[in-house]
Amino acid sequence: MTVHSASDRKPNGGDKRERILDAAERVFAKHGFYNARVAEIARDAGVADGTIYLYFKSKDDLLISLFESRMERVNTTLQAKVDAVASAPDKICTFLNAYALLAKEHPHVAEVLTIELRQSSKFMKEYANPRFGEFLRMLASIVEQGQQRGELDDGIPPLVAARALFGAIDELVLAWVLGGKEKFDIVRAAEQLGAMTLRGLETPRRDP
Amino acid sequence: MTVHSASDRKPNGGDKRERILDAAERVFAKHGFYNARVAEIARDAGVADGTIYLYFKSKDDLLISLFESRMERVNTTLQAKVDAVASAPDKICTFLNAYALLAKEHPHVAEVLTIELRQSSKFMKEYANPRFGEFLRMLASIVEQGQQRGELDDGIPPLVAARALFGAIDELVLAWVLGGKEKFDIVRAAEQLGAMTLRGLETPRRDP
Repeated sequence: MTVHSASDRKPNGGDKRERILDAAERVFAKHGFYNARVAEIARDAGVADGTIYLYFKSKDDLLISLFESRMERVNTTLQAKVDAVASAPDKICTFLNAYALLAKEHPHVAEVLTIELRQSSKFMKEYANPRFGEFLRMLASIVEQGQQRGELDDGIPPLVAARALFGAIDELVLAWVLGGKEKFDIVRAAEQLGAMTLRGLETPRRDP
Repeated sequence: MTVHSASDRKPNGGDKRERILDAAERVFAKHGFYNARVAEIARDAGVADGTIYLYFKSKDDLLISLFESRMERVNTTLQAKVDAVASAPDKICTFLNAYALLAKEHPHVAEVLTIELRQSSKFMKEYANPRFGEFLRMLASIVEQGQQRGELDDGIPPLVAARALFGAIDELVLAWVLGGKEKFDIVRAAEQLGAMTLRGLETPRRDP
């Protein structure tokens, strides 16, 4: 058995990486990525400052690892919910609803995903972002299958539709995180977005 | 007449502020907001380093002023184009198309608006952002008027629709800026988004 320092709260160090990620999530959400100090993350996690660098190369690396960890959970949750309904329109509504619910239940994660991530130039420009790729492909393949089955209009490429839908729900979550939490219900807004996306904003033209 | 230093390219210093903003746009797009150095912006603008601080308090202030200047132009251009068509559905398509065209014609501005701005924590959390408020209200009032005239479905609050639409087009522009410029045509994608928003993705259910 490994000997642990007094700053380790738990006898088994295997979850130390997870504890650091949990602490980073809280500290990034509180101070923002650029103002967050690694020393505060270490204190919050109950580890020595240097310990963080055994697991993560830099603060950027910590942010990217946090994103991957949370996005993996988001993707797993969304995929399970989407698989549980049959038609493409139902899958799209379920996807939007589940994403909004995740934001509502985990506002710190929502803040990291919508605000803090974009403050890292490294993340935005250099990181290949495989988890976000998975997320987009999940949404694009719902659209593609729906088009193949004739449930959805095929006038828009699936990846363009997926990007647009992600952008729409992401912006609503951002507005909600940045100050609208009491002003509007993010889950209700996701339902309205689903209806707008599927049935369209334009009212049907009546025959003369 | 005021005496100008040798570093001033133009005899009239009134446009010095504009020259600094133009230089900041190029330098932010090239190096990113966080890595951009005020000295390089000064060099690019042809002014002494200290001159920048006569016009702008800080690099954050320079970014916010750049945003306000460019957003003012964007809003003026969009409003003129939207006013030139009559129905709400046409106004929505015109708005999306004009926004995509602006991005295509001014990729440096698009990069600052979609990426660099979000790297300023001050901008995201502290700045009240009146120009973006104008932009959103323009879009929301198109939706609201369309709903009042019966052209658009009133199942979604105008501001939720406006946020969702902005999020969708902004994400498409971001994808285009970050590496898709040869992969897809942003103006064509904006047209597809307009059709999806107005007529809906779901194919009409046929009567049995």
